[in-house]
Amino acid sequence: MLPKLAIDLLQHYLEEDVRTGDSTTEAIPEIHGLPAVATIFAQSRCVLAGVEEVLALAELVGARGQVLAREGEWVGPSQPVITIQGSADALLRIERVALNIMMRMSGIATKTRAAVNKARAVNPHVRVAATRKTTPGFRFFEKRAVKLGGGDPHRYALDDMVLIKNNHIALAGGVRQAVEAARVNSSFSKKISCEAREESEAIEAIRAGADIVLLDNLTASEIEQLIQSLEELGIRECVLLEASGGINESNIEEYAKTGVDIISLGALTHSFKSADFNMRIDKQ
Amino acid sequence: MLPKLAIDLLQHYLEEDVRTGDSTTEAIPEIHGLPAVATIFAQSRCVLAGVEEVLALAELVGARGQVLAREGEWVGPSQPVITIQGSADALLRIERVALNIMMRMSGIATKTRAAVNKARAVNPHVRVAATRKTTPGFRFFEKRAVKLGGGDPHRYALDDMVLIKNNHIALAGGVRQAVEAARVNSSFSKKISCEAREESEAIEAIRAGADIVLLDNLTASEIEQLIQSLEELGIRECVLLEASGGINESNIEEYAKTGVDIISLGALTHSFKSADFNMRIDKQ
Amino acid sequence: MLPKLAIDLLQHYLEEDVRTGDSTTEAIPEIHGLPAVATIFAQSRCVLAGVEEVLALAELVGARGQVLAREGEWVGPSQPVITIQGSADALLRIERVALNIMMRMSGIATKTRAAVNKARAVNPHVRVAATRKTTPGFRFFEKRAVKLGGGDPHRYALDDMVLIKNNHIALAGGVRQAVEAARVNSSFSKKISCEAREESEAIEAIRAGADIVLLDNLTASEIEQLIQSLEELGIRECVLLEASGGINESNIEEYAKTGVDIISLGALTHSFKSADFNMRIDKQ
Amino acid sequence: MLPKLAIDLLQHYLEEDVRTGDSTTEAIPEIHGLPAVATIFAQSRCVLAGVEEVLALAELVGARGQVLAREGEWVGPSQPVITIQGSADALLRIERVALNIMMRMSGIATKTRAAVNKARAVNPHVRVAATRKTTPGFRFFEKRAVKLGGGDPHRYALDDMVLIKNNHIALAGGVRQAVEAARVNSSFSKKISCEAREESEAIEAIRAGADIVLLDNLTASEIEQLIQSLEELGIRECVLLEASGGINESNIEEYAKTGVDIISLGALTHSFKSADFNMRIDKQ
Amino acid sequence: MLPKLAIDLLQHYLEEDVRTGDSTTEAIPEIHGLPAVATIFAQSRCVLAGVEEVLALAELVGARGQVLAREGEWVGPSQPVITIQGSADALLRIERVALNIMMRMSGIATKTRAAVNKARAVNPHVRVAATRKTTPGFRFFEKRAVKLGGGDPHRYALDDMVLIKNNHIALAGGVRQAVEAARVNSSFSKKISCEAREESEAIEAIRAGADIVLLDNLTASEIEQLIQSLEELGIRECVLLEASGGINESNIEEYAKTGVDIISLGALTHSFKSADFNMRIDKQ
Amino acid sequence: MLPKLAIDLLQHYLEEDVRTGDSTTEAIPEIHGLPAVATIFAQSRCVLAGVEEVLALAELVGARGQVLAREGEWVGPSQPVITIQGSADALLRIERVALNIMMRMSGIATKTRAAVNKARAVNPHVRVAATRKTTPGFRFFEKRAVKLGGGDPHRYALDDMVLIKNNHIALAGGVRQAVEAARVNSSFSKKISCEAREESEAIEAIRAGADIVLLDNLTASEIEQLIQSLEELGIRECVLLEASGGINESNIEEYAKTGVDIISLGALTHSFKSADFNMRIDKQ
Repeated sequence: MLPKLAIDLLQHYLEEDVRTGDSTTEAIPEIHGLPAVATIFAQSRCVLAGVEEVLALAELVGARGQVLAREGEWVGPSQPVITIQGSADALLRIERVALNIMMRMSGIATKTRAAVNKARAVNPHVRVAATRKTTPGFRFFEKRAVKLGGGDPHRYALDDMVLIKNNHIALAGGVRQAVEAARVNSSFSKKISCEAREESEAIEAIRAGADIVLLDNLTASEIEQLIQSLEELGIRECVLLEASGGINESNIEEYAKTGVDIISLGALTHSFKSADFNMRIDKQ
Repeated sequence: MLPKLAIDLLQHYLEEDVRTGDSTTEAIPEIHGLPAVATIFAQSRCVLAGVEEVLALAELVGARGQVLAREGEWVGPSQPVITIQGSADALLRIERVALNIMMRMSGIATKTRAAVNKARAVNPHVRVAATRKTTPGFRFFEKRAVKLGGGDPHRYALDDMVLIKNNHIALAGGVRQAVEAARVNSSFSKKISCEAREESEAIEAIRAGADIVLLDNLTASEIEQLIQSLEELGIRECVLLEASGGINESNIEEYAKTGVDIISLGALTHSFKSADFNMRIDKQ
Repeated sequence: MLPKLAIDLLQHYLEEDVRTGDSTTEAIPEIHGLPAVATIFAQSRCVLAGVEEVLALAELVGARGQVLAREGEWVGPSQPVITIQGSADALLRIERVALNIMMRMSGIATKTRAAVNKARAVNPHVRVAATRKTTPGFRFFEKRAVKLGGGDPHRYALDDMVLIKNNHIALAGGVRQAVEAARVNSSFSKKISCEAREESEAIEAIRAGADIVLLDNLTASEIEQLIQSLEELGIRECVLLEASGGINESNIEEYAKTGVDIISLGALTHSFKSADFNMRIDKQ
Repeated sequence: MLPKLAIDLLQHYLEEDVRTGDSTTEAIPEIHGLPAVATIFAQSRCVLAGVEEVLALAELVGARGQVLAREGEWVGPSQPVITIQGSADALLRIERVALNIMMRMSGIATKTRAAVNKARAVNPHVRVAATRKTTPGFRFFEKRAVKLGGGDPHRYALDDMVLIKNNHIALAGGVRQAVEAARVNSSFSKKISCEAREESEAIEAIRAGADIVLLDNLTASEIEQLIQSLEELGIRECVLLEASGGINESNIEEYAKTGVDIISLGALTHSFKSADFNMRIDKQ
Repeated sequence: MLPKLAIDLLQHYLEEDVRTGDSTTEAIPEIHGLPAVATIFAQSRCVLAGVEEVLALAELVGARGQVLAREGEWVGPSQPVITIQGSADALLRIERVALNIMMRMSGIATKTRAAVNKARAVNPHVRVAATRKTTPGFRFFEKRAVKLGGGDPHRYALDDMVLIKNNHIALAGGVRQAVEAARVNSSFSKKISCEAREESEAIEAIRAGADIVLLDNLTASEIEQLIQSLEELGIRECVLLEASGGINESNIEEYAKTGVDIISLGALTHSFKSADFNMRIDKQ
Repeated sequence: MLPKLAIDLLQHYLEEDVRTGDSTTEAIPEIHGLPAVATIFAQSRCVLAGVEEVLALAELVGARGQVLAREGEWVGPSQPVITIQGSADALLRIERVALNIMMRMSGIATKTRAAVNKARAVNPHVRVAATRKTTPGFRFFEKRAVKLGGGDPHRYALDDMVLIKNNHIALAGGVRQAVEAARVNSSFSKKISCEAREESEAIEAIRAGADIVLLDNLTASEIEQLIQSLEELGIRECVLLEASGGINESNIEEYAKTGVDIISLGALTHSFKSADFNMRIDKQ
């Protein structure tokens, strides 16, 4: 059940493409009102995502979709994944937007699934998380694709969690000052995370009351050593540890092995390869 | 001078990220109202794009940007490209959105520039064009990035040109029927393009009055032969020829050599690698 | 099938009229929820337009219309053109907006039909086009009315075509400079039109590559002579010729006879006489 | 001081015209950022209106207008009425919308002034009022033009006053029932008007407590006789009398002479002739 | 039949609460799509209001309400007032907003009813009116609650009536000047009200043509005396008298006895006690 | 620095009140453009809130405010708290909205401050929190008022935290099932809270991994006993305890003494008494 916010975005995407109308379809009277069925086929192997979105797009133009493959599952070339019944005009109006969404969301879900599988093979409890490095205006769908791929969406917006980054620390005058201010001035309902670039900062953040420490640009072995120190100090359990920066599919296992709780990757949403889908429309 | 439509999108992107506020910054009183300067640095070699957008974002939060490098030109690692003066709160509010836009637009501009350079090396008049395979809600900026990379944005929306595709031809009952209907029923102010999958269709489209023929999924040698046929029939000059489908950076030269007028690539906007940028904020 | 943009405008028009409610109907309890049928009658002879809009308005308030006469056809006094079933409250809410739209659109369609008939009587291929001299906020419906009258809507907005006018030519430094810049900097998907106030400018525009030359404020005989010159130069076929400025129903035949391709008239949308319609509401 | 509602409408009108940009201006680099001044000239004799709107449009694109002639006063051919300083790009973006508004508003103001002058020559206290037969989405400006012409804008929307029309009377079961219901169920802050098609209805409406009686489609002599009857009954002073239906510039004096308080004319907003204006843009 | 303006507000209220989704419900798969029925129970004795709003909220999320108790009637503790059938997800999404509206509207209706009953016990024709001291963004529903309680909503917005207050009188230079300007410059369709702080001002306002005189912060005995004076002058019948300022449930009878036509109380909307309601959701 | 979301709400509030204009001010020419200064005075003793909002309102109409008293501090009767310079028209347009906001926000801040002071007198670390029982469409400002009063805003919307309530527990099949599902399916970035109506449920929730336990409708002594049990089990420190339900100013100390971490009160936003303010406008 997509929230109204998502339906409004889908409507906005349609209007971006349709504006005053579909000049081509309107110029060909044979198409007007013709009952038709559209079939969307996967053209590459991928983890399917975007099905709810396509169903909602269909509904927005008075058409009705039927699901042939489930979100979050693998589909392969030439596999039909959804059919949509409606007038040919309506189907042609949503074609491009539907494919644009599905190809991106499935690309992200597929990339996320690969990263999760690699990381969990060596650390079954680790979470692979996205970041806010999303396409402006398309974040909701990118985050949802991450979830369908098995990842953690991380915070959605700046008011979702307190996340103290280097710029904040520098301006606030230090890790301890920043975390303590955050504890006093934030609602109890929000978690507090703090970046640390070295062991001493991580310890300072934990002692000041951070719920999460974000280990930024540390190597896997630095993290291993840090965790050992925290365990020796008896403060490992108080906190979630998140590794971030320079992590990709080739080194994610190393990071997962360190025992961190979360590994976050901007590339899940900024450097994925779109999956390939097409739509065939037949008279009915 | 960005249109109001673009400014409204930028505002919408900010609200997607900020919503009820920036919980982190609001929790650290030391930051409130602090005069500061943000510097955006390129972190990878790329064709710069998104500068106008960052200037507009700055203005939306009462800050003021200064340009250090020009859109459409190459920038390299650690090169500062823009500085923004304003309160630290304001700079932190736009940081992520500004970087998210600039990294995507510069990635697209860079990929476009590479394709244009390859194609024009063998055919100086060819145009490299994008498609409508854009990220929903972000099309304006992706098309603008294509232009900054030296490419042709192609049509922006469904009402920008008549483009008769296979689904239309099938539903209309043939190439000739579709093109003729389009000529009668469209405004004189719009061009008419028609897909052709083989020589006979291309000839049929031209004779029916198409301004552009889109050669879909033809090999470079098929296109060469087609052009020769058109020249022999004396109808090459009446029309623009666009090659599309399965073209990428490794085979674009082959296609360019055929003498087509336009080569369009969906990958310019659906499979680019984001360029890397970061922002440093200093007290002033 | 009206685009969402049009439905949103219709909704906006209803809200302009209804705001917090219909004070009259709300004050008379006998009317609340009463099943009723509204009949719209033409009160003057006109080319009918606006039927799709009235159907959409009905749907917006939960009522349902039935069409008794087709758009684009002549209707006469006292002829019922549409009936709408719904609650009396709903019918009273849309009454004024429905009539306001239909009277204007039918007025424009009627004026356009008259102009088209006159012009085509002497030049069967000529197009009669509207301009952008439309009522702000109501353009979509005025352009649609022009189409229903048999006219050409011309460009919808500033990004629909390149149209170089006198102000551009003056600022750019000449016809050739402006047209050449447009060819280089515009997408291949857009046509380029250029105003010309005399023969030499027209020739300059064509040679620089304009797709259309807009002959502004030339007399019919000047245009005839110009066309002859172009034919002698062998460049008549390369271009569409559009006549504009000072043309009305009394001299449109003269212009049509010259052989121009398009005649455009601002008065189609800025000086039409509204057709007359009324609505009767009966208990059911 | 235009309300925000009007500024938002003006912005919406600009976006209707500009959308993704001004393709012509953007294609001609010589124009970009060029300081320029636009001068709007009246081209026909008219009562000037729309100046506030043009100033607001200028402000919306960062330009600045200067007023040369006052709203509500007569201007004549070739008379400059406003100048606007700004970048040439900005001036070209507002040109068409500014002229479209000014030509319509001045047309309405001129037609209203003529009607007011005629009516007041024979009845100095009569008001000439518009109706809700306005262009959807443009009502605010049409009503303001009526005021500038010396007319009364009448109610703006359905919640502005209670106005019981024939459809209401029929559904409510009679004049008395409808007016009494309205008195009980409406706020004391709103006036109650009631249509009457004959003397007996007018008397019934007044006795039931109507503040205004709208005499619909009565001849001037019928109205004269009615007023005499009301005076004899001693109920003329309790009520405002409004004449409506079939009144135009040729018979308005007759109606004014009857002594009615208000004469309303739909044609003020549905059948006016636009005044003529143009804009010249010069480099500065 | 709520106007679209109200439906849009309700949608906006839902989005304020739901934003990107309902994190709790989404995390518990057992709830997804579960058919359920929600029952809203009154928890305190009150005049019921907000039922139409809850029905509309239900419809916005695809659920369907059934009314068990009528708006404007008394309900008591543990009394079910409405049931809603739909998926459990949908019911949980509207729960808080539905209760927030119903508790406030019923609180206002209850307070209004009490005031009306007291006032009418001694003056059966007096109206008890609200003011514009409403919660920003929630005025429509607060005014509707006043009506359901038996009160008069008074003007909805600044353009609903002319109401000359002390600030206007001071700036205009006096009561007479302000009222006369208002008569000349306002539409005949609007009433004119004027504040008076003493007898002489009231008389001045009436003689200048005010339809309503708002007696601000006068004691009940001052009002009594004033009315006597007006009767002696024969101008009592020309005008509605409204008492305002410092009136509450304990002294409203005194004011009602004076014979004023309207008593207005800001506290109806700024100092009410919310009624208590809760919602139980059961599997179906 | 109010977020854009808040500025947009303020603008929306102004338009609710102003719509097509301020009929009174527009009818009195003496007021137009008159330079003036408005002074807002507190009329009752209260904790001041809403100053940022009034400044922003002033800016929206081109006026400029100056702060005389700080938000979060006590002000008393007749104390001027803010002055605003601008045209009289502009000041009259914002008057009612500015006062409506300030009176409500200050009322809430005052009520919150009283509760915080009482609770902290006996438990210096306890937080007093609001709930989501806010006025629809006005939540942002009510939550901000709670913060200015020294309270905790609690979650803003349904996606801010996972809060498992009785309806969820019943539908999910138990406390443990619901909390465990929430842990698996929610982002690590969100806290998980769970309602408990008795000791066993609280223990179950903590053992299943809840970050917060919301003790709903327990007496103070039940809570005391519960905390003792948790301490004996060694699980008190793992969790935040929140007391809610039936707590008000007269019993809040009892609850605070129990040692809970948070006490939440719906009445902070649904049953406050508005503070009293007025505005005087003087010519300048």
